[in-house]
Amino acid sequence: MLVIGEKINIMSKSLGPAMKERNAEPIIEMAKKQVERGANMLDINIGPATKDGLALMEWLVTTVQGVVDVPLSLDTTNVDAMEAGLKVHKGQAMINSASGEPERLEKMMSLASQYNAKIIGLTLTEKGIPRDANERVTVAVDILTKAMEKGVPPENLYLDPIIMPVGVAQKDFVEIFEALRMFKQLNDPPVKTVVGLSNASNSLPPKIKPLIDRTLLVMLMACGLDAAILDPLDKDLMNALKTSLVLKNEILYCHSYLD
Amino acid sequence: MLVIGEKINIMSKSLGPAMKERNAEPIIEMAKKQVERGANMLDINIGPATKDGLALMEWLVTTVQGVVDVPLSLDTTNVDAMEAGLKVHKGQAMINSASGEPERLEKMMSLASQYNAKIIGLTLTEKGIPRDANERVTVAVDILTKAMEKGVPPENLYLDPIIMPVGVAQKDFVEIFEALRMFKQLNDPPVKTVVGLSNASNSLPPKIKPLIDRTLLVMLMACGLDAAILDPLDKDLMNALKTSLVLKNEILYCHSYLD
Repeated sequence: MLVIGEKINIMSKSLGPAMKERNAEPIIEMAKKQVERGANMLDINIGPATKDGLALMEWLVTTVQGVVDVPLSLDTTNVDAMEAGLKVHKGQAMINSASGEPERLEKMMSLASQYNAKIIGLTLTEKGIPRDANERVTVAVDILTKAMEKGVPPENLYLDPIIMPVGVAQKDFVEIFEALRMFKQLNDPPVKTVVGLSNASNSLPPKIKPLIDRTLLVMLMACGLDAAILDPLDKDLMNALKTSLVLKNEILYCHSYLD
Repeated sequence: MLVIGEKINIMSKSLGPAMKERNAEPIIEMAKKQVERGANMLDINIGPATKDGLALMEWLVTTVQGVVDVPLSLDTTNVDAMEAGLKVHKGQAMINSASGEPERLEKMMSLASQYNAKIIGLTLTEKGIPRDANERVTVAVDILTKAMEKGVPPENLYLDPIIMPVGVAQKDFVEIFEALRMFKQLNDPPVKTVVGLSNASNSLPPKIKPLIDRTLLVMLMACGLDAAILDPLDKDLMNALKTSLVLKNEILYCHSYLD
């Protein structure tokens, strides 16, 4: 299971300013903390990054990989910033993300091929988010076709069925469970799957938020989820994740498996 | 979702003696408490009940249904005690249980037909517990065939894939997830599925037990589980169950859905 720590994000109240000021300390601290708590990949989210994107991504990748020994998920819609990050990244990076939107798909998939990177394929198009499992699969097929055309191995592709907040899209989740199973049938070896978990509980009351997140994670894992972008500092969430891995027989049960 | 409260059990330290002494008070209290906490069916487990089975089951059914308005799952291997309970039960009872063992299957299925009861079919045989999903489906087909032969509607049949403790059968769970999905393909309208949840965490440390139970429940619900025999007094378990029902779009989300 790929556990991608979500905390290094330009939208973060503390880390956003640190990024702009090239203040490494709080970023380094957050990188270390997430890896200690079980993240085996870190997301580096700089948003659209229209101004300072190239230099910022390059600085973040070298700064973070200078202190933790995990690969990074480079999270920006800026193709040049993406490439700047890939150039300095050690090991196999992840491109976060392509989608069914043709121009972005073409460019990001070329980068994935050129740098032998993993790549997230969001199953959305210019027309928006698919309504059901079948529409998600249609977009997934386009993304997979483009991957093959560019020589990106299917096992490097992580399809994201797109999670929306439960308050506005409650009926989406059954479609997402179904889509995850259908994605697995598309190719052999199967493509992988990923979600941005906390989207589900966006703007919900703090009392409910973590419960929604961890329940959803475990349900998705039962449907074959391979990776999730999540908050590894949420201990209950990580305990649910570990327990799910025990039940999937992916880590060995012992009385101290939570320690 | 059928939430079957497990607490009225002859093995219970407090309720076992109460059953033998026909002391109604603690049994009534436990019945009410389970229903208040969300059980919509109560299991009445009197074990093999070789001696006093008939009279005890009859007394329990009338006593419990005298105070709570839910159907009961009659849990005994004693066929005569089962029939004594069915005779006095109000509404549609559940027979807990038949299995692939031919003699018991024949007798219990006849009762299910005669009393229009729901019935749990354990996917085990004289040879023991199946090793994988395919073996579970083989037993399930035998049970379904017998149900049809006896005129028991498939939608009254609840197949149980048999959960064993994680400490001794960790690799069984992926087979159980798969079996639940395969059971659903056996008939249209589909048969239903049920588990005895707490078997999974039998004899585990108290710190881990509830986490295993609620993680497993939510994973099984993602695979289409229709019913579970569980402890409705475990608040975290019931909150996980409700959250899973929200994500399955079976209860409507609102900020107070946990209250």
